[in-house]
Amino acid sequence: MPPDITSPANDRIKWLARLRDRRHRDVEGLFVIEGKRLYRRALEAGLVPEITFLADPTDIATVGKVLTVDPGALDKASYRRESQGVIGVFHQLNTSLDRLQPAEPPLILIAENVEKPGNLGAMLRTAAAAGADALITVGETLDAHNPNVVRASMGALFNVSLAMSNWDELAPWLDANDIRVVCAAPDASEPLWEARLTGPLALVVGAEDWGLSDRALALADDTVLIPQDTGIVDSLNVSVAAAILLFEARRQRT
Amino acid sequence: MPPDITSPANDRIKWLARLRDRRHRDVEGLFVIEGKRLYRRALEAGLVPEITFLADPTDIATVGKVLTVDPGALDKASYRRESQGVIGVFHQLNTSLDRLQPAEPPLILIAENVEKPGNLGAMLRTAAAAGADALITVGETLDAHNPNVVRASMGALFNVSLAMSNWDELAPWLDANDIRVVCAAPDASEPLWEARLTGPLALVVGAEDWGLSDRALALADDTVLIPQDTGIVDSLNVSVAAAILLFEARRQRT
Repeated sequence: MPPDITSPANDRIKWLARLRDRRHRDVEGLFVIEGKRLYRRALEAGLVPEITFLADPTDIATVGKVLTVDPGALDKASYRRESQGVIGVFHQLNTSLDRLQPAEPPLILIAENVEKPGNLGAMLRTAAAAGADALITVGETLDAHNPNVVRASMGALFNVSLAMSNWDELAPWLDANDIRVVCAAPDASEPLWEARLTGPLALVVGAEDWGLSDRALALADDTVLIPQDTGIVDSLNVSVAAAILLFEARRQRT
Repeated sequence: MPPDITSPANDRIKWLARLRDRRHRDVEGLFVIEGKRLYRRALEAGLVPEITFLADPTDIATVGKVLTVDPGALDKASYRRESQGVIGVFHQLNTSLDRLQPAEPPLILIAENVEKPGNLGAMLRTAAAAGADALITVGETLDAHNPNVVRASMGALFNVSLAMSNWDELAPWLDANDIRVVCAAPDASEPLWEARLTGPLALVVGAEDWGLSDRALALADDTVLIPQDTGIVDSLNVSVAAAILLFEARRQRT
């Protein structure tokens, strides 16, 4: 049986290809998950696709409406020109702060002014492994549904609560939830392993080179240093710094 | 004054462009550093360029032979089609094990079967920040002079001792230097923070999904676990795992 769609000029394929652009994603309220492993993880996390484009229908379990597509045409619509056989279109995730329901005691990562989608994805992956309850971004308006976030998160985007917020909204929320705020700052004097990282906790990291805003530092109950050899290279990558903080917190909380 | 080279068809530019290929780099024993920040760091680290191609001679301090090039032609020879104004050609680094001179007590990171240049670069950067003496790779024959290694290392490639080795050579070297070998393994039972990470130490990490070889595990004086929530996503990225291990070692060694 020939596939439902054979031509890359098909209207549905053109529509799918347009979802590579943030503007189109946001207008439609949709985003795209490519590849079998990530698609499977999205279903496992309970996400329901709006539609699934598939090269080989015997290849993977699907949910909802499915269109079969010639593999070459499917690759054309892919972000990396390599669909790995499946592209699912999903409703965008709800990233509002008021939806968060942290565990008790909460362990939260706050990332300020993170610019690179790959770093956001990597932090989601690390936060999942560290057992953090949520990742909250403030500042730069990153696109959570950028394909590089999806890919770098290895599926953690579907499982770790992600909220995109700002200090005006976040400061009273942290206060209302009695969450201690610990900022990582290059000019702090207390090494992170001497600080108390137990109890309800939010760890705040800033983008490389930038440091944290005055607003972030003003909210800090404590500022800590990740002691490191500097001078040779820049400070640690922000997602690596987040990993060191989260796993030191995990050590103390064990 | 017109630049020395104006055309992307110039023989020197074609030669430079060919160095984007590993085969040409290895035949010539050269590699390429692009961009002002990395070029400056290479000079600071004592590297001497074979030749420097430069868009604007007033832009940056250089060493040795310099050719000025029309910016468009220079970009054409760049790995990412964006030279940032300078491309330096340098002699390849010596990555032989017998060149290493670890500090006392040594802290060494060993990475087995790392495949992605970006991960190798990230580990070099983190190793520099953690104050490690060396990074030693075994297994997969990675190209240390891949432009993505250079870039992801943020210059740490020029400063952290990097050796590319194999277990046949490395096992007796570790033994002769009385270096304790601690492997990170997903099926270990002892959390890393309960293991002793002081004294002469080599931390061994494997590529994601693969784990470590039997050969690596047979050399281990201790195997440790990075306790993490699994099931949702894969294990930690190898460079993140390395960071957590190195900074736990730093905590214990402080």
